[in-house]
Amino acid sequence: MKWKTAISKITDGQEIIRGQDLQSLIKEKTFTESIFLILKGAMPGKKDTQMMDALLVACIDHGVGAPSATVARTVASTGNSLHTAVAAGVQTLGELHGGAIEGAAKFFQENVSEKDIKALVKNLKEKKIRLPGYGHKILSHDHRSDTLFAVAKETGFFGQHCAFAMAVGAALNSISSKKLPLNVDGAMAAIISDMGFAWKQAKGFFIIGRVPGLVAHALEQMQSGEGVKRLEESEIECLF
Amino acid sequence: MKWKTAISKITDGQEIIRGQDLQSLIKEKTFTESIFLILKGAMPGKKDTQMMDALLVACIDHGVGAPSATVARTVASTGNSLHTAVAAGVQTLGELHGGAIEGAAKFFQENVSEKDIKALVKNLKEKKIRLPGYGHKILSHDHRSDTLFAVAKETGFFGQHCAFAMAVGAALNSISSKKLPLNVDGAMAAIISDMGFAWKQAKGFFIIGRVPGLVAHALEQMQSGEGVKRLEESEIECLF
Amino acid sequence: MKWKTAISKITDGQEIIRGQDLQSLIKEKTFTESIFLILKGAMPGKKDTQMMDALLVACIDHGVGAPSATVARTVASTGNSLHTAVAAGVQTLGELHGGAIEGAAKFFQENVSEKDIKALVKNLKEKKIRLPGYGHKILSHDHRSDTLFAVAKETGFFGQHCAFAMAVGAALNSISSKKLPLNVDGAMAAIISDMGFAWKQAKGFFIIGRVPGLVAHALEQMQSGEGVKRLEESEIECLF
Amino acid sequence: MKWKTAISKITDGQEIIRGQDLQSLIKEKTFTESIFLILKGAMPGKKDTQMMDALLVACIDHGVGAPSATVARTVASTGNSLHTAVAAGVQTLGELHGGAIEGAAKFFQENVSEKDIKALVKNLKEKKIRLPGYGHKILSHDHRSDTLFAVAKETGFFGQHCAFAMAVGAALNSISSKKLPLNVDGAMAAIISDMGFAWKQAKGFFIIGRVPGLVAHALEQMQSGEGVKRLEESEIECLF
Repeated sequence: MKWKTAISKITDGQEIIRGQDLQSLIKEKTFTESIFLILKGAMPGKKDTQMMDALLVACIDHGVGAPSATVARTVASTGNSLHTAVAAGVQTLGELHGGAIEGAAKFFQENVSEKDIKALVKNLKEKKIRLPGYGHKILSHDHRSDTLFAVAKETGFFGQHCAFAMAVGAALNSISSKKLPLNVDGAMAAIISDMGFAWKQAKGFFIIGRVPGLVAHALEQMQSGEGVKRLEESEIECLF
Repeated sequence: MKWKTAISKITDGQEIIRGQDLQSLIKEKTFTESIFLILKGAMPGKKDTQMMDALLVACIDHGVGAPSATVARTVASTGNSLHTAVAAGVQTLGELHGGAIEGAAKFFQENVSEKDIKALVKNLKEKKIRLPGYGHKILSHDHRSDTLFAVAKETGFFGQHCAFAMAVGAALNSISSKKLPLNVDGAMAAIISDMGFAWKQAKGFFIIGRVPGLVAHALEQMQSGEGVKRLEESEIECLF
Repeated sequence: MKWKTAISKITDGQEIIRGQDLQSLIKEKTFTESIFLILKGAMPGKKDTQMMDALLVACIDHGVGAPSATVARTVASTGNSLHTAVAAGVQTLGELHGGAIEGAAKFFQENVSEKDIKALVKNLKEKKIRLPGYGHKILSHDHRSDTLFAVAKETGFFGQHCAFAMAVGAALNSISSKKLPLNVDGAMAAIISDMGFAWKQAKGFFIIGRVPGLVAHALEQMQSGEGVKRLEESEIECLF
Repeated sequence: MKWKTAISKITDGQEIIRGQDLQSLIKEKTFTESIFLILKGAMPGKKDTQMMDALLVACIDHGVGAPSATVARTVASTGNSLHTAVAAGVQTLGELHGGAIEGAAKFFQENVSEKDIKALVKNLKEKKIRLPGYGHKILSHDHRSDTLFAVAKETGFFGQHCAFAMAVGAALNSISSKKLPLNVDGAMAAIISDMGFAWKQAKGFFIIGRVPGLVAHALEQMQSGEGVKRLEESEIECLF
């Protein structure tokens, strides 16, 4: 079976990543620059790197209570290797845990030219289609969004998708009874779109950004000496 | 059940990672600095960051032929979400694929004070204990090790563990019939040890560094339109 | 956090699964009967068990070339524990590898009352909606479907969904240029529907049925002594 | 790359599992018989099947509080596909959650000829080596072991390994301050050994037996409409 790739060429004596010599990357480029390179296929400018750093740092961890951290720690506690625990944490990043970034990027990229935003939002609400990227389970306001937009303005990446995301948020909150702040997924989705990434790539930013947090949590659990994390009887309610 | 953590504190209105305000990290720190912070519990100096960048970049990808990439792409090809494909790639990082970094760091940290390295290596060879961090399936010489050691010398992290790793390599190759270059796992293990990380953390560097490559491979496969990757009949040999 | 379940109640001295004493199940019931019980919430009759056995056996393995087997073996080859390798195999069971069983069951259950099947199929074809459960990558005719339908007739589970699946197949093949046999996913979906299971449960049958095959493959790979399974250079095509 | 297997041969028109025609297996054999076949390479006798059924049923579920169930449900709750949730549950089956079955089978198979069991156990205790297969986190006595041994006696599989496991248990409890009942892992390990399986295969029984329970738990969680399972603030204790 043939495996075709434009990402890298590794042979004995030659290691090329997206056209760049791996040894030069190791010596001269930051991890963030190399991540940009491997995802975009070209070296970033200074502002790309600054924006990319902000996006990845915004994802790095959101507490032991984020389900991916709880899962990574539980799997670590049952006597597993670090990579198996981290992988289980990554599997937890489903539609409802970081998945909104993909949905929001798709929505922004497909509707950014829409003129009548109020009508668009009203129409979705009537069809009971939930807009990804707005609302958060524990935060009434997601400060990460403000901070990311501040960096986006500084680096010149606050473009039409970011403006659209904010306008949609305003329209949404004007008709919603519940507060629905633009969350970190939504802000990331807008910025990533303005950086020229396809919406199918958006979730990748969240995965890459969160993995260091999952590694830290799994390691802390392994070193805690607590043994297996298990529900207590009081947490279980039998329905029969 | 109680979950104890010293990594982060996330409440509505306050997001603290290792004692640092998350919003400040997003605005002011690079991804690599934040990775260092979350693993080590303290902000890095400039040289820590430079060394850390080199270590993570060295892991970013090693071609579609690395089993973790092949697995991530196969799982992506069967109609899975990006995070499920990446997680399967991470699961592939077993003892024989990046796992040597942990074994090598443990070996270096436990034996670094050993005076008679020749006797140590000879003794292990006689017991048929394979030294992790030496030898590579496709490379006769692993240039990533040289490059990482060059950066380690520049940043001041070429310490006793790095010297020990080289001395072990010399002793090993003087009695081995097969060429056993210090590979990237071994070089990373030595440097990480000289940076003051515990050997149990070592594998985490490889996981964090490789995930962007796995994301790129899974995305490329999904966008290829090739459909399910499946062995051809000629690749299968039935033993009955 | 509360965890509610109607599946089981396990306390020191009392182990109840779906209202049945676990010790009695161990002594008196087969694995298949217990699987039926845990999924359906009631003990099966003799014919339920016979049908269930046929469905699960039909999934048990489809060769080393099925991507889930190839992945489980690759992960086993990189020095992982058995359960980590099997888990990676399970992750491979995406939309295009066993996933059709869910899509087909949903389609059958939602459209079974449709009178004009030819129009339905023609309409889907015009909209370029691919019908799940028809066609196979390597089989021109899927004998597992015939065999399962034979058992369904014998046990009385060849009902309206099975008849519908066959009628759709006939209509589809009358207008398709390519042969699209009802495959094992489609046949299973129809039978499961006639047994009264919800379409959301359908994929569960495939997962449960395939796991023993994945265990066998991972174990065979671990015992082969082959070391890491890695692409050869001739299998890689660099696109730059 | 070549993939060698003695498990199955699947071509268009011919599907052979361990030398048996797949269609015949579907029509004539139970799931348990087929599992035995694929693991052992030969068709089971009536008593093999009865014993095998008991072993697999004993593993089918141990409540929502078993970490594999909690993890599968958490992953299901974050908007994942069934197979991704089940896979995460399987990953949870580490050394401390079902892993003892492998360790115990290894210990039994390697030490079964030992004459002085008291000395053996005392020696291990002095070296602080924990014997796998004895003790349970929530059960003071594991009735599943009694039940399995009762079936083993009935079917003729209560052989030297089972007798050895009981003798070790007696010796262990005579010197331990804590009650350490032979748990289900230990009983399974002994019986599997007396059935002639290699210790490396032992964990496979547990994985196969538990997957239906994980499927049931993941489905129940998905159908609960509860949304994301997340720790409450009261469950989190910040250490800084």
